[in-house]
Amino acid sequence: MAEFALIERYFSNLSRPGQDVLLGVGDDCALLQPPTGHQLAMTMDTLIAGRHFFPDVDPVALGHKSLAVNLSDLAAMGAKPAWALLSLSMPEIDDDWLQGFVQGFQDLAGRFGVKLVGGDTCQGDLSITLQLSGFVDAQRAMLRSNAKPGDQIFVTGALGDAALALQLLQEGKDPGELRADLEKPWPRVDEGRALAELGVRSCIDLSDGLVADLGHICKQSRCGARVEVERLPLSAGVSDYLRESGDLTPAIAGGDDYELCFTLPPLLREGLDELPFTCTCIGEMVAGEGVELLKADGSRLPPPKAWEHFAS
Amino acid sequence: MAEFALIERYFSNLSRPGQDVLLGVGDDCALLQPPTGHQLAMTMDTLIAGRHFFPDVDPVALGHKSLAVNLSDLAAMGAKPAWALLSLSMPEIDDDWLQGFVQGFQDLAGRFGVKLVGGDTCQGDLSITLQLSGFVDAQRAMLRSNAKPGDQIFVTGALGDAALALQLLQEGKDPGELRADLEKPWPRVDEGRALAELGVRSCIDLSDGLVADLGHICKQSRCGARVEVERLPLSAGVSDYLRESGDLTPAIAGGDDYELCFTLPPLLREGLDELPFTCTCIGEMVAGEGVELLKADGSRLPPPKAWEHFAS
Repeated sequence: MAEFALIERYFSNLSRPGQDVLLGVGDDCALLQPPTGHQLAMTMDTLIAGRHFFPDVDPVALGHKSLAVNLSDLAAMGAKPAWALLSLSMPEIDDDWLQGFVQGFQDLAGRFGVKLVGGDTCQGDLSITLQLSGFVDAQRAMLRSNAKPGDQIFVTGALGDAALALQLLQEGKDPGELRADLEKPWPRVDEGRALAELGVRSCIDLSDGLVADLGHICKQSRCGARVEVERLPLSAGVSDYLRESGDLTPAIAGGDDYELCFTLPPLLREGLDELPFTCTCIGEMVAGEGVELLKADGSRLPPPKAWEHFAS
Repeated sequence: MAEFALIERYFSNLSRPGQDVLLGVGDDCALLQPPTGHQLAMTMDTLIAGRHFFPDVDPVALGHKSLAVNLSDLAAMGAKPAWALLSLSMPEIDDDWLQGFVQGFQDLAGRFGVKLVGGDTCQGDLSITLQLSGFVDAQRAMLRSNAKPGDQIFVTGALGDAALALQLLQEGKDPGELRADLEKPWPRVDEGRALAELGVRSCIDLSDGLVADLGHICKQSRCGARVEVERLPLSAGVSDYLRESGDLTPAIAGGDDYELCFTLPPLLREGLDELPFTCTCIGEMVAGEGVELLKADGSRLPPPKAWEHFAS
């Protein structure tokens, strides 16, 4: 399989040169022109069949998700997506599968202006590595290390849908509408850019679950977080599950949500109300360390099982 | 395995913030400051155990090679290496193996000023994806599409050592000194930058073999190449093999050489003689298409077996 040949054939719509892409797929390197006055945000994630996704997952969803998880990292910095490099390892060339994968990738790439500028294809077990770059206004990047005691903690969207869908699939049950939350998460790119523009300086995307990811903010900002679990935004599906099982795990320790969790200095509160999307305040940053989960009566919840794994 | 945790532990020496690295490993994205007046060259390659390398290869050599093959792509553009993102998939955490891999990677990265700014680790079959960015002076990048009839064709180093080493290993023989050419190729980064500085505008690295790679220059420059096989620079090992077997395949169709092949307008010839490394003229670009191999008596050699695969 010749280097790039596959990518060129399937992705030609995505790899045309443009203002910032002097040379796309087809040479030893892509040649790119970063805009002045900006910094570059770069991320890379690998998805492996059987580990990060079911091998028989809809290829359209997989193409979407492999870009979405990287877009979510850019969103958490407040970056504008720009250039992607894709490495695709496949056991064989399956035209139908590839066309589906490309469609899922392409639809999302088009929505956020991502240009595919290079990559690699090889024969092997199915896995996808995507590297993505974006632009951030100088001094406006949102970092895990910028939270301060007194900041309020917010999340976009609802928590736990993807984790509950995964749990149902693993139990052999149909996750219904929740399936899309697991397989085709929507990266909060527009929300991230709006938050950075507003002046938010600390944010993370919820890929490992709320407690783990908020724990990263705590650790890197050297403070603690107090979360009131009754305030967590939950979909009808997760609410029903919680009511029946009493199990908060999907909402507080489930991965793959790809919502943003950010901290808001009190001065920015009014600006937040004017943004064209809803965020939910779930608690506040405090002096100390680690994430504390509080019930409505003020008592503390024990940390979720997955927490220990990430806490050290 | 927590995202980045492994990379942070093993690669901390390589991931310190600096002038162009505002934020390295440890947030959702790396944050980078591209220098003004430059373009970015970007490449990404995946190496899979059992396909691109023997699973039991020395991890030091593998760490070296996974960076070297990407450095070679930057070299072919004349770019100065800058930032790397590494995705490492491993069946288990093997401390000895990882320390070896990091050492090989780190030694080469230090030599060329590469900073590791991010990546991913996951459990799976052993494979390595590296994404690398470098800086090119505006308008100075060497492209596959810039060769012209009348240009002389040059290569750095000697051809076929890696391919012959692989052939010997596959036959169960000891490749001796040739092993290093296969397992620890030296990327021609300094040479590529010097050539771009001199004014060379067309270059490729020899990863797929001379005929295939020079064929890319022909195709993208819309001209042909005439190579005199007696002029090919060969090591003693490949010369001996050729004398005994009559087989030119390693030299003309062997992969993994990572030498540079470039085309030189006659006006630049004097400048080339002043460079502190040796290049060998092996033929010239001509009107027409494809790579023609000529013997000393002027007769044509048939294309090598591997040629057809890449020619279409």
